[in-house]
Amino acid sequence: MSTAAVGTLYGVGVGPGDPELITVKAYRMIRECQVVAYPKKRKGGKSYAHEIVELYVNPEEKEMLGLIFPMTKDPVVLEREWGKTVEACWAALREGKDVAFVTEGDPNLYSTFIHLARLMRELHPEVPISSIPGISSVLGAAAALDIHLADGDEQVGIIPATADKEAMRQAIEHHDTIVFIKVAKVLDPMLELLDEMGLGGKASVVTKVTSPYELVWRDARELKGQELEYLSLMVVSK
Amino acid sequence: MSTAAVGTLYGVGVGPGDPELITVKAYRMIRECQVVAYPKKRKGGKSYAHEIVELYVNPEEKEMLGLIFPMTKDPVVLEREWGKTVEACWAALREGKDVAFVTEGDPNLYSTFIHLARLMRELHPEVPISSIPGISSVLGAAAALDIHLADGDEQVGIIPATADKEAMRQAIEHHDTIVFIKVAKVLDPMLELLDEMGLGGKASVVTKVTSPYELVWRDARELKGQELEYLSLMVVSK
Repeated sequence: MSTAAVGTLYGVGVGPGDPELITVKAYRMIRECQVVAYPKKRKGGKSYAHEIVELYVNPEEKEMLGLIFPMTKDPVVLEREWGKTVEACWAALREGKDVAFVTEGDPNLYSTFIHLARLMRELHPEVPISSIPGISSVLGAAAALDIHLADGDEQVGIIPATADKEAMRQAIEHHDTIVFIKVAKVLDPMLELLDEMGLGGKASVVTKVTSPYELVWRDARELKGQELEYLSLMVVSK
Repeated sequence: MSTAAVGTLYGVGVGPGDPELITVKAYRMIRECQVVAYPKKRKGGKSYAHEIVELYVNPEEKEMLGLIFPMTKDPVVLEREWGKTVEACWAALREGKDVAFVTEGDPNLYSTFIHLARLMRELHPEVPISSIPGISSVLGAAAALDIHLADGDEQVGIIPATADKEAMRQAIEHHDTIVFIKVAKVLDPMLELLDEMGLGGKASVVTKVTSPYELVWRDARELKGQELEYLSLMVVSK
């Protein structure tokens, strides 16, 4: 008794925001896969990934699979919701359909695809999984700011910003360029630390990089005391 | 007396090797710019960037500007050769032509474009300069190896490998994932160090990632004592 082959789950990076920063390969994948899965916002509105996909595929000709990702740290809720997401993809994969799961940026760098792939491997290890690189917001930020990330022997760190001042100090000391992601919550302590280190003028911030809503602050000190959007990163270039 | 506006110099990342990993924007730029500048190999053969460009533009319809980059550390030769490169681009820019300078990977991460842009700013500060991000070999390697670079609070380092064992040890200690570029020259000492740190099985190596000549070693220890190509990187994923 033979069964049809299961489909492949592709993590497809669609870039940081500008729809033109999708790769030719990602474009081909979302057109060729029978199912396109995308992060669906709970409260209406569309994720960038969803907006970008809609520019390139006709949703009428495609099985569009909107997946909700929980914004909670409750492990019980998380496990239940992630389980549902995997099963929704599996329902298509088991029928032999290929699923393109689109993610902003790159699928292997701080992306929901990492979680999805991990749980899929656990629950349905027979599913082939592959990823298509995408332009990360880190690379998008360098272009937006007109700076280089590293040249020659320089070292780059990509670091989630936290309130742990000592850890942040070390990250700054150990690299020539540091890209702090998730900086919104700890912006003021970060600015204080940079000031202490004599690097106050060396930090820039970009929000929603390369998208139509992009905002750039070449000198992060202008932002003192202000609220930032979640999708904000800081580049410290020594 | 007015003069015609000078053209813009674009640094255009064409990705790590797979021609499909060019972005839609980079594709548009190399088609729209009147001049395409590319790194020309001294001894025949074509650079990846050149090969990729030839798939997307008709060289008959385009001013193709092959630029030679010196493979020397002699500062006198370097300055003279880089100066020639800048002047070759300037000759087109001063006529109002836009120049797309194509680079493998991303133009702001270990790229010849960084040098070219720096010297252009110095010699002809009136030239507008802009860059179009490209998929870096770092992102290409994660996809080729089926690993994630970072998730949640994890930290990534992008580090040029050197023979300085202590510096390499610290880089490994301070990050969850470390991408060592230019690893070919110091492969054996790196493998020894990883072994000492109990991380021998955690390192992979990729050569010419995503290109038709890609080679992947999921366990870098297999490479002990072997010669590697220049375009090789190591990913240590703890």
